[in-house]
Amino acid sequence: MNNFDFQNPTKILFGKGQIEKLSNEIPEGAKVLLLFGGGSIKKNGIYEQVSKALSNFDVIEFGGIPANPEYEVLMEALDIIKAEKITFLLAVGGGSVIDGAKFLSAAALYDGDEPWDILTKNKRTIKGMPFGTVLTLPATGSEMNSGAVITRKETKEKFGMGGPGLFPQFSILDPEVVKSIPQRQLANGLADSFTHVLEQYMTYSVEATLQDRFAESILQTIIEVAPAIIKDPSDYKAASNFMWSCTMALNGLIQKGVPSDWAVHAMGHELTALFGIDHARTLAVITPSHYKYNFEAKKEKLAQYAERVWNITEGSTDDKAYAAIEKTTEFFHSLGIETKLSDYTKEYEGTAEEIAKRFTDRGWLGLGEHQSLSPDKVEKIVKMAY
Amino acid sequence: MNNFDFQNPTKILFGKGQIEKLSNEIPEGAKVLLLFGGGSIKKNGIYEQVSKALSNFDVIEFGGIPANPEYEVLMEALDIIKAEKITFLLAVGGGSVIDGAKFLSAAALYDGDEPWDILTKNKRTIKGMPFGTVLTLPATGSEMNSGAVITRKETKEKFGMGGPGLFPQFSILDPEVVKSIPQRQLANGLADSFTHVLEQYMTYSVEATLQDRFAESILQTIIEVAPAIIKDPSDYKAASNFMWSCTMALNGLIQKGVPSDWAVHAMGHELTALFGIDHARTLAVITPSHYKYNFEAKKEKLAQYAERVWNITEGSTDDKAYAAIEKTTEFFHSLGIETKLSDYTKEYEGTAEEIAKRFTDRGWLGLGEHQSLSPDKVEKIVKMAY
Repeated sequence: MNNFDFQNPTKILFGKGQIEKLSNEIPEGAKVLLLFGGGSIKKNGIYEQVSKALSNFDVIEFGGIPANPEYEVLMEALDIIKAEKITFLLAVGGGSVIDGAKFLSAAALYDGDEPWDILTKNKRTIKGMPFGTVLTLPATGSEMNSGAVITRKETKEKFGMGGPGLFPQFSILDPEVVKSIPQRQLANGLADSFTHVLEQYMTYSVEATLQDRFAESILQTIIEVAPAIIKDPSDYKAASNFMWSCTMALNGLIQKGVPSDWAVHAMGHELTALFGIDHARTLAVITPSHYKYNFEAKKEKLAQYAERVWNITEGSTDDKAYAAIEKTTEFFHSLGIETKLSDYTKEYEGTAEEIAKRFTDRGWLGLGEHQSLSPDKVEKIVKMAY
Repeated sequence: MNNFDFQNPTKILFGKGQIEKLSNEIPEGAKVLLLFGGGSIKKNGIYEQVSKALSNFDVIEFGGIPANPEYEVLMEALDIIKAEKITFLLAVGGGSVIDGAKFLSAAALYDGDEPWDILTKNKRTIKGMPFGTVLTLPATGSEMNSGAVITRKETKEKFGMGGPGLFPQFSILDPEVVKSIPQRQLANGLADSFTHVLEQYMTYSVEATLQDRFAESILQTIIEVAPAIIKDPSDYKAASNFMWSCTMALNGLIQKGVPSDWAVHAMGHELTALFGIDHARTLAVITPSHYKYNFEAKKEKLAQYAERVWNITEGSTDDKAYAAIEKTTEFFHSLGIETKLSDYTKEYEGTAEEIAKRFTDRGWLGLGEHQSLSPDKVEKIVKMAY
């Protein structure tokens, strides 16, 4: 096991009816900016519940934060924060809205000239404006971690940011929201959280037995609940395990003491930036090719995953590892998610070269757990995913 | 899954050489009371490492906190805290020293007349004196939770206490300490952490799939590393997984959203209070009888545990459940831990009645996940454990 530091101060309020407790969690006298997305919260009853719970606070609303939260839109919200002397941010939505709130938390207290530098110059946020979340879409895990991903539309770029000051003070997770989520988003959430676990698990062994088993627990749970979620999102057993699995998949716990990969995300982000493909679907496109290309480096762990998660006990290590990649691909298909870039766009020619060039230009010369995936290898992986 | 709130702000610094970072974690200018136990830290090199790391602080030492931390001894430390205007407590030791620090953290800021009331009148601590820990004995999980158990020798009583103000600010976990721990303590740590998981898992299903799998992950890991720990405690793979498993077994995570039992601990505490039997060994005495007595209520979960943790796939639910109890008993024996009260004392007659009477006197009329274990049932379970 590798050395690690771990701290996660976010308070989770999980279960039916927890939105009622919102007012206990926001500092008295706070001036609140309520952030949300495309307005689905006005259709599913969440907006009413949140508004009722906030009745004792001075609240300004800012809706319209898009999927893949955009810098340009967030800068409008930043102007409001400054003009209205906002003291607390409340994100009501999925990962995009929460990530947007994290950017605003950082930018509101940033003392540099240009908030875009937070993203391009890796400015870690030690102290941000306090914020909480009401999660309406289980997927990204952003509700219990300190990272965010922000998109700049004009340059088709997508960058990560983070820092210990960006943990939500609280997050409210009511699994009853799951029943109002469209199928496409449910499938995305299942694929996204599943891939989050894989990125932290499908590397090489450092003899971290407990972390491996925790990762396998989340994978097994997602596989178990996925058909029920797709069939009937009002199934509370499935919805609650789905929601808690998404949070545990990316709250820091399973990545502590082990190497992590994240090359799938790095490549996937470019596909979203270039083609607007849903984040989760880009992961499903890249994952099988990535594992096939890096088969030798990952096959021991792939075989362990085959045995423990997919109950594949026959055959050699190579056989099991290969079968695990097939099972993973089939899992994405079972969610209605395609796994080839050509399933999403006919304009895929040149994509691999473009992504490789972007990584070269940014100096991203070695991705993955061994920092060995150079841009020429990235090019090959993306091509395999056509 | 049941509703839950979860927050655990303790910062963990895990791995080789982490004690060096101690000075970064204590507030500048703090006046530190260094708490430790019987002096083993002066033999295993921990004392030197801690002293070196504290060289920039004003430190007063208080050693001699016994196993099952005693109120009388702790009250001496409380006098020092007040007389010397201590501002930060540093517990260097196992669960007893850490629990002692928690009592002192609470008592130092307690505004009542008699600190004993914190224990007997269930006074929850919202804000305590800040403290950190350097863990020298993996077992209790106290390094990452907000609970403590304190003993009063004169009355042979043992009580729990806690509250959100009693999380350590930080805990340093260096698995290299494991190699200096005597065999008896290693065995106790393995049995203690194993039983902690069982208390939160061996109840009834609330369809909390992820929590079940996490609990099973810890049990599997402890079973896997136990022989290696007993054979060679300098095996870093085993030591690190053992240490992190003990922490994860009782940091709150696996008990969220599920019912928990804790009747084994309630009965076990009395055996320690009455006979001075090591805490972990009292759990090994009570556990098999408790599961046999409550077989009908627990057999579904016992059978799941049999299948997933012990790979017992043949037979009926009853067969598997019974086999799981046998496997658990054998596991304790494999650690050199006996599972009958008569293995520890010849004066066991009347113990069951005495414990039942104590529970009646305290108004503890229904223990366990169904609050259905009345004192007459407790009497029967303890008798089965003779």
